[in-house]
Amino acid sequence: MSRILLLGAGRSASSLIHYLLQHAEANQWQVIVADASKETAEQKINNHPQAKAIALDASDEEQLVIAISRADVVISMLPATMHPEVGMICLNHGKHLFTASYVSPAMRELDEAARKKGLLFMNECGLDPGIDHITAMEIIDEIRGKGGEITMFKSFAGGLVAPEYDTNPWQYKFTWNPRNVVLAGQGTAKFIRNNQYKYIPYHQLFKRLEPVNVEGFGAFEAYPNRDSLSYRAPYGLENIPTILRGTLRRPGYSEAWNVFVQLGLTDDSFKIENSEEMTYRQFLNSFLAYSPTDMLEEKLCNYVGITRDSDIYKKIAWLGLFEERKIGLKNASPAQILQQILEEKWALADGDKDMIVMQHQFEYVLKGEKRSRISSMVCLGDDTLHTGMSKTVGWPLGIAVKLLLQGKVKARGVQLPITQEFYAPIITELKSLGISFIEDDRAI
Amino acid sequence: MSRILLLGAGRSASSLIHYLLQHAEANQWQVIVADASKETAEQKINNHPQAKAIALDASDEEQLVIAISRADVVISMLPATMHPEVGMICLNHGKHLFTASYVSPAMRELDEAARKKGLLFMNECGLDPGIDHITAMEIIDEIRGKGGEITMFKSFAGGLVAPEYDTNPWQYKFTWNPRNVVLAGQGTAKFIRNNQYKYIPYHQLFKRLEPVNVEGFGAFEAYPNRDSLSYRAPYGLENIPTILRGTLRRPGYSEAWNVFVQLGLTDDSFKIENSEEMTYRQFLNSFLAYSPTDMLEEKLCNYVGITRDSDIYKKIAWLGLFEERKIGLKNASPAQILQQILEEKWALADGDKDMIVMQHQFEYVLKGEKRSRISSMVCLGDDTLHTGMSKTVGWPLGIAVKLLLQGKVKARGVQLPITQEFYAPIITELKSLGISFIEDDRAI
Repeated sequence: MSRILLLGAGRSASSLIHYLLQHAEANQWQVIVADASKETAEQKINNHPQAKAIALDASDEEQLVIAISRADVVISMLPATMHPEVGMICLNHGKHLFTASYVSPAMRELDEAARKKGLLFMNECGLDPGIDHITAMEIIDEIRGKGGEITMFKSFAGGLVAPEYDTNPWQYKFTWNPRNVVLAGQGTAKFIRNNQYKYIPYHQLFKRLEPVNVEGFGAFEAYPNRDSLSYRAPYGLENIPTILRGTLRRPGYSEAWNVFVQLGLTDDSFKIENSEEMTYRQFLNSFLAYSPTDMLEEKLCNYVGITRDSDIYKKIAWLGLFEERKIGLKNASPAQILQQILEEKWALADGDKDMIVMQHQFEYVLKGEKRSRISSMVCLGDDTLHTGMSKTVGWPLGIAVKLLLQGKVKARGVQLPITQEFYAPIITELKSLGISFIEDDRAI
Repeated sequence: MSRILLLGAGRSASSLIHYLLQHAEANQWQVIVADASKETAEQKINNHPQAKAIALDASDEEQLVIAISRADVVISMLPATMHPEVGMICLNHGKHLFTASYVSPAMRELDEAARKKGLLFMNECGLDPGIDHITAMEIIDEIRGKGGEITMFKSFAGGLVAPEYDTNPWQYKFTWNPRNVVLAGQGTAKFIRNNQYKYIPYHQLFKRLEPVNVEGFGAFEAYPNRDSLSYRAPYGLENIPTILRGTLRRPGYSEAWNVFVQLGLTDDSFKIENSEEMTYRQFLNSFLAYSPTDMLEEKLCNYVGITRDSDIYKKIAWLGLFEERKIGLKNASPAQILQQILEEKWALADGDKDMIVMQHQFEYVLKGEKRSRISSMVCLGDDTLHTGMSKTVGWPLGIAVKLLLQGKVKARGVQLPITQEFYAPIITELKSLGISFIEDDRAI
């Protein structure tokens, strides 16, 4: 009997828990679901005979130690900042660890010690990071295996709303952490294009877009992610002339979002004095110059160079930012105030389904011929529990845990799912679960 | 005999040392000038009989403790980040402390302990902060003393080059820390205008300018400083409808500097890969989108919306940013690369003199009449040693020390020079040294 401890039973853990329970009997697993709310954990396991729900305050190290010491494998869906601590406890108690989070420098430092103890610390094994690594590496290895040379790699992903429920002028609803959406892109985007390093500061990011098309799902646009350069080394693409990663939105989203960036509404670095008593209209006005004559609407249009009949203006007006409605949030940053109004307007309605979109674009030279490979995946949510996000984040983790417990993988230490022993079986099983990429390969 | 210890004998300390030595005999002072370079310290005291030069490594706490314990009064021209440590040592050994730096929260915490020991910890007693506080508070107290109500306060300051030596298209040369000039304004500017809070993100800052005119010295422009709001409480202007502080440049500087901000060249948050081997032209190109056809010059003009015959373009071209010249700086941030080319082009030539400009603008209501008060100061450098900067930073500090040692001031604890016992005698003596404000007061 292997004991699998899952830390965190929030929304995105639903499909993972379902997967683990489905495979529990055949594999003789006991699944312990730990959450701050025991009730949440109990709901998720739904009286399954091989599962147990426990209450766990993850900020209490003693509770973490007790729970981890009783398990064989730990899957952490806790915030990424907690993973170095969870990793240390797993190391001290000789437990394997699985996360869907980026490897932090602190996690990286546990590599050697984990190897010595024969432990696997698998990270970046969800959707993005996760399925992106898994499916990109399969293609990269395949092309290189045939003697091809990759000259371009672009990779795009986005969590959106399914077409049927795509009902607002932004063509966007929150299917994931709203705060991350509001703060997305802050910093400097770095990539390489035709052997030239390219750097885009945040305030230009939402103007520097790539068009992306996905067969059957229409047009998207992508703004560059912060760090495309760091993918070169793990993918073995150190000298690639073009590498770019980006985030997908429906066309028109970015030019309207750019208005918020230009104004400063996504700023999270300071608190607005008296924010509780202000109206949204006053909030907006505090980012525009004083004028004894011009209306707020007019000032905004002049400042960012739009007209009142533009789609951009309509998107902003639709959110209610011109309204004389009280904010009611105490001591809030601009980003927090913006997030509040977006959470109201961009909420998923009952029955709305989400949509995960991912596309890899390669150009490569094979036997003197220039070719292109486009590999695209769309995953729609089944219902409010098994969303596209929950399935694509949770299943790769669940499959990786099963591979380990069935003795099918040899790698130990701090790992990403970028080697064949992981990506090949994960891709095969994801396909059987309905998550598959459609490939287009042609001479160009 | 009072022993005055001066920590740091760099360029901006020249006039302060000169002042202290001039008053040493009459006041029975011994002046100990401590610097990392004993030679620098020796040059500055020039064999004065009541002065002593010592070598001091300020990062070595033991050396600091020894030097401070032997003094009665400490003046620190060290970097502001060191002042909490210097303050703690002064407190432990019962010494008065004078700095020209902003009061940090750590310094603020020493207030009560310093008071209890009867010690004066005078801060923000240089130019800006310093002369700005001193001269603004004299006017504020005068207007309020007559029963007037202040409705607007704007205050501007800048370190520039004297008109005779103002010979480049930017009308700017470095007379102060170049790094601070390159990074100036990063963050969010906060002020109040007509009872409305106003927030300006960095990437809009150099477009939101105030015109400023100084009789006899012509036109300037000012971009808003980061935090104008924090001046309300110490000045007793909690409910003032308009308060704004800004930095002065010659007209046209900001719109050209804004090109660097728009591109991202002032970014200090990351390092450019391979910066050593890049040319300035490649550096510039890395902030512009790839184009198979357009020249760099064309791309830049299109991106920031200027033409090649514009003054902005001429300013940028004059700096040499389009040249195929190697940067030669290893692992440098964009800001560091920009600073390097500016330091070459904006260097003061031999014999060049600097110019300090400060202007306070008030509007107030006195007996039902709306009035304006404009108070302006220009201070030109005498030579390369006694620059405008050195005089205006050093003299207020020197005068404040003299006031303390002559027993003329009673305040103790952490102080700013905003009360009459400090500002009145400092203003009087600055006038005798040639630093005076010209006032214009009229009904409006």
